[in-house]
Amino acid sequence: MTSVEQSAPGALMAAEVAEQPGVLARLLREGAGEIAGVADVLRARAPRFVLFAARGTSDHAALYAKYLVEIGWGLPAGLVSPSTTTVYRADQDLRDVLFVAVSQSGGSPDLVDSLAAARRAGAATVAVTNNPSSALAAAAEWHVDVRAGAERAVAATKTYTAELLALYLLLGGPDATTAAAALPDAAAATLATGAGAAAAARYRFAERLVTTARGYSYATAREAALKLMETSYLAAQAFSGADLLHGPLAMVSVDVPVLAVETGGRGGAALQPVLDRLAALHADVLRIGPPDGVPVVADGVPEELLPVLEILPLQQLAWRLALDRGGDPDRPRGLSKVTETH
Amino acid sequence: MTSVEQSAPGALMAAEVAEQPGVLARLLREGAGEIAGVADVLRARAPRFVLFAARGTSDHAALYAKYLVEIGWGLPAGLVSPSTTTVYRADQDLRDVLFVAVSQSGGSPDLVDSLAAARRAGAATVAVTNNPSSALAAAAEWHVDVRAGAERAVAATKTYTAELLALYLLLGGPDATTAAAALPDAAAATLATGAGAAAAARYRFAERLVTTARGYSYATAREAALKLMETSYLAAQAFSGADLLHGPLAMVSVDVPVLAVETGGRGGAALQPVLDRLAALHADVLRIGPPDGVPVVADGVPEELLPVLEILPLQQLAWRLALDRGGDPDRPRGLSKVTETH
Repeated sequence: MTSVEQSAPGALMAAEVAEQPGVLARLLREGAGEIAGVADVLRARAPRFVLFAARGTSDHAALYAKYLVEIGWGLPAGLVSPSTTTVYRADQDLRDVLFVAVSQSGGSPDLVDSLAAARRAGAATVAVTNNPSSALAAAAEWHVDVRAGAERAVAATKTYTAELLALYLLLGGPDATTAAAALPDAAAATLATGAGAAAAARYRFAERLVTTARGYSYATAREAALKLMETSYLAAQAFSGADLLHGPLAMVSVDVPVLAVETGGRGGAALQPVLDRLAALHADVLRIGPPDGVPVVADGVPEELLPVLEILPLQQLAWRLALDRGGDPDRPRGLSKVTETH
Repeated sequence: MTSVEQSAPGALMAAEVAEQPGVLARLLREGAGEIAGVADVLRARAPRFVLFAARGTSDHAALYAKYLVEIGWGLPAGLVSPSTTTVYRADQDLRDVLFVAVSQSGGSPDLVDSLAAARRAGAATVAVTNNPSSALAAAAEWHVDVRAGAERAVAATKTYTAELLALYLLLGGPDATTAAAALPDAAAATLATGAGAAAAARYRFAERLVTTARGYSYATAREAALKLMETSYLAAQAFSGADLLHGPLAMVSVDVPVLAVETGGRGGAALQPVLDRLAALHADVLRIGPPDGVPVVADGVPEELLPVLEILPLQQLAWRLALDRGGDPDRPRGLSKVTETH
């Protein structure tokens, strides 16, 4: 095992990005049955409202899962503000609520407190983590292990895609495991194009960048912006296509590049009017998904699972750009692997 | 009535910013009784979950209201993704749900569709708008008129603070009207300091900026960032204090200024560890709230209402900075007053 101190800049992140097809395959092979069992119990509990609690990268996995619940389950869902329990100590009535906390480490005290408070308030509680022996896993009624293996780069990559897949297996319906079968090969094929890393040269001197998408892919836009912020220190901002038109569009000019995640399906189609507006402004747009942009190979993968693939070239882009700028994506300044917030 | 074409750059926004104490006083005088009546009916309906739907500036008012519900009502709440109904056509079960749509114009088709779908799915529906004859007002079971008068600058100011107060009167409990009595005078005193506009010189050449806060004030950080984006074209990014520590902190350096909204109460106290981390990084931080920062005069105003005051100097800052940069905050490039998203 290479120690963090000895590895070359970006070596950890590169290895963990490349590991993802194997991580997804392992989760399907070893975890899907167990997660399907939890999913059955949850469906039997018939929740009427679903809350997600998460921070950072895991918050983007939670955002993805919110769409799964709103569209697939037809239930209202929300992302909780942990501060309402940990700072304001609100007493909540959470009967009939399914409360899902998502965290790579399972160690952030505010999430543990939030989940414990939700359980006391009557919610069914699930922790989705990469650490079965974490405090969050212990506090929850059920635990879903994303089985990504130890993640050593500060910038989360394989735990993100493993969280996405685990949440899909948990919330995507009884056929989720079958629907996800093509994912590992599609991930390998997408990574093999190398198109994400090749696109990095274009942004070598960019100070700002906007990412946009609609629907399921909005989570990808958010996670891509965070990856670029934390590895390359760009001011990267994510907007849903609809929100972009309500104000932030003013700051998009020929000097602010846009990454548009447009893999397909209804979310991609709904992005079209936004792309038309950007074209009218002569904005610099790189499309993630179509063959003439940064291709995402998604043969046999349903729209609901595209976010697992879309982020892969964007991880490669963030990694390459950080190195080109003389940074070390494994050890971004000012950050440590486990962030404890209260 | 001055036509938009004839007015000097920023004249409309300046007038509407200055109008706010009067707008708040009018809403209390003419609207509070009616809103209290709607609030009584809603409490009697005993919703178990609350959903908010909004875009742009109104989305920040909705974010504020989410905290009111989570903390004050002890109920789970969420911000809906309108695309789940308008793009994915999800059928939802929204019995026992209170669905609140917030929109200055009441005209955005996706909000109207979302609200109509929620009503069909069994939700109690309320529209909070500045236009009683709007499609959104017509589609909802109840309408709350924020009575801000016509807003002509593209950058929303008085409709934002009026939406905040209207949502407080609707959701802040039976004593809300009394608790808000000191607000108009406090708003006038805060605007009179002029400290927000005075701070603009410091950011004349800034390309990027980060805003941060916790709790109720997080809505202020979000809205301030949007104002700066849409009037001055800065890459302004808002993070809750907790989220800032999970990744984005890496891009905050001595060259990226931070505006920290730290008016007081528990949210301000919870921000302290974030300010300590920023100080350790030698970040450039301007505090909004404390007397030695940009003061917010809040005599007699409860913590829950501070966001109505905190945004005032930040509106002045955005206005002044846009003018200093040769822009026109009344007519930002690429934007129109009513944004129609589908």
